[in-house]
Amino acid sequence: MIIDCHGHYTTAPKALEEWRNRQVAALGNPAATPDVNELRISDDELRETIATNQLAKMKERGIDLTIFSPRASFMAHHVGDFQTSSAWAGICNELCHRVGRLFPDEFVGAAMLPQSPGVDPATCIPELERCVKQYGFVAVNLNPDPSGGHWKSPPLTDRHWYPIYEKLVEYDIPAMIHVSTSCNPCFHATGAHYLNADTTAFMQCLSGDLFKDFPKLRFVIPHGGGAVPYHWGRFRGLAEMLKKPLLRDHLLHNIFFDTCVYHQPGIDLLTKVIPVENVLFASEMIGAVRGIDPETGFAYDDTKRYVEAAALTPQQRHQIYEGNVRRVYPRLDAYLRGRGR
Amino acid sequence: MIIDCHGHYTTAPKALEEWRNRQVAALGNPAATPDVNELRISDDELRETIATNQLAKMKERGIDLTIFSPRASFMAHHVGDFQTSSAWAGICNELCHRVGRLFPDEFVGAAMLPQSPGVDPATCIPELERCVKQYGFVAVNLNPDPSGGHWKSPPLTDRHWYPIYEKLVEYDIPAMIHVSTSCNPCFHATGAHYLNADTTAFMQCLSGDLFKDFPKLRFVIPHGGGAVPYHWGRFRGLAEMLKKPLLRDHLLHNIFFDTCVYHQPGIDLLTKVIPVENVLFASEMIGAVRGIDPETGFAYDDTKRYVEAAALTPQQRHQIYEGNVRRVYPRLDAYLRGRGR
Repeated sequence: MIIDCHGHYTTAPKALEEWRNRQVAALGNPAATPDVNELRISDDELRETIATNQLAKMKERGIDLTIFSPRASFMAHHVGDFQTSSAWAGICNELCHRVGRLFPDEFVGAAMLPQSPGVDPATCIPELERCVKQYGFVAVNLNPDPSGGHWKSPPLTDRHWYPIYEKLVEYDIPAMIHVSTSCNPCFHATGAHYLNADTTAFMQCLSGDLFKDFPKLRFVIPHGGGAVPYHWGRFRGLAEMLKKPLLRDHLLHNIFFDTCVYHQPGIDLLTKVIPVENVLFASEMIGAVRGIDPETGFAYDDTKRYVEAAALTPQQRHQIYEGNVRRVYPRLDAYLRGRGR
Repeated sequence: MIIDCHGHYTTAPKALEEWRNRQVAALGNPAATPDVNELRISDDELRETIATNQLAKMKERGIDLTIFSPRASFMAHHVGDFQTSSAWAGICNELCHRVGRLFPDEFVGAAMLPQSPGVDPATCIPELERCVKQYGFVAVNLNPDPSGGHWKSPPLTDRHWYPIYEKLVEYDIPAMIHVSTSCNPCFHATGAHYLNADTTAFMQCLSGDLFKDFPKLRFVIPHGGGAVPYHWGRFRGLAEMLKKPLLRDHLLHNIFFDTCVYHQPGIDLLTKVIPVENVLFASEMIGAVRGIDPETGFAYDDTKRYVEAAALTPQQRHQIYEGNVRRVYPRLDAYLRGRGR
């Protein structure tokens, strides 16, 4: 089977955005804050937004299942305070959970966390636990920069983040390291901030020794690892200069890259440079880049075409499509086995 | 001939760093600021640091000439105020000029600018003019983030930067877009901040219409363009979504990428994806990555080996090594012609 480990609910009904707009508008005036229960979206509406969008494309492209989390650019952790993020994360996660219940064979949830700038990440644990225990979610998205492009949190190797890591290890779920929108005018969200965050997160891990403290912690770095595979020689050399072990030993038991790279030469490089057991199939469809590539006549984000055309054996392709994802997301594997898959 | 368009004086005599340390130590106490004339470095010392380092490696690797600018990570524009940067840039540029006079066949200067956070870039013009007119420098390094990792300046497309661009066009010199060190603990300087800045600068240009205002302005984006060539499909798709022309028309008359990518698959991708006329040979030697790659037995930053092994015709290789650099740096071309080369 083919598992896309990186999908967001980018097509949620308009009512969601309207509720959020009301929440944001009320920031200076708490009495006007909308109640969570004021958002009403029917199952039919959810079904419609999925069936005509993500699911239609999955069928068209031959993708069997998507790990599905709230829209990354809408997490906007920089907005308001912890209460703001908490209500918003609760709503967004619940919608992904409902999508998973409506389409149990095609969608399994991953959580956004109610992060907020300057707030102890431990405050995210109740929502994380709810999503794992009540919803059966199989992963979380962790934002290394809840300030939205100002980068005011400590590096991912700092003890600041350890309460989250302890829970991830306890539940045996990976974190996709995924920023949200940028409110720094220097950084275009999907054209700079996302890729920069991927590179930054990798280099933070390279500089530190986080995985000595958490040998079972697993990070998925999306968007093909930002600039990392393209500069793999640079990173190998920097590891040597920083007196770290070889990257394979230092990081590759714990860090995985997805295949959200939207042209053939990029996927060719990724699959050539990074050991195949560290590459996870993903498309982030329907996401940042929605057009048809005039050079191929196919969607930019139809990454399955690139993986099909890459110089891989059928066995390696199977690892990327399914085997690696089941290994990195053991709760997904258990869920699938429970359904005889 | 083979021209390396990206070299820094990373091996300057210790006295330079000592002068800088005194300057920084005096920040709270202007009376203690060392005078520029207190720094004394002899020609022999300069000769020694070059002959045993950059020049030795150039000879070993077969590189004929390097465009040589002050050490990027030491620019540290975030330190002090405009006066601080002004004295420091003046000293560093003069040293590069002296290296060029001592080795006129092998080194030609490029300027650092006395940028300072929050200060009008127009204040850099006197130093820029001095370097071009008195020193014969052929380019400048422009730091898009003088705050050193906090990204508080407007994007490169903002009118904020136009006074610099007007001078670059007037003198027909390119700017290499090159940040300095990071004082944001999230960003490792050479492992994250440099690459992020390259990606960010490209995306700023993609999002705007700067080159409509300055059709002759030329930017060199170092380190192989950060994440850009690896994600070329993403950027082509984003240009379409932002209703911009094809990247070739929108940006590639004005933006060039160097070859500071430290492994073969990276150079293979760069030279495959980016039109050959937009690729400029460079190594940034002696720079960020100084070791020997155990996988090849050669220096990571010996980028000529990768260009030699890439699938290029001799004519294309000549463009990358020399033709493109002479076109993008016309003052270098004039200098070389004046010397019968």
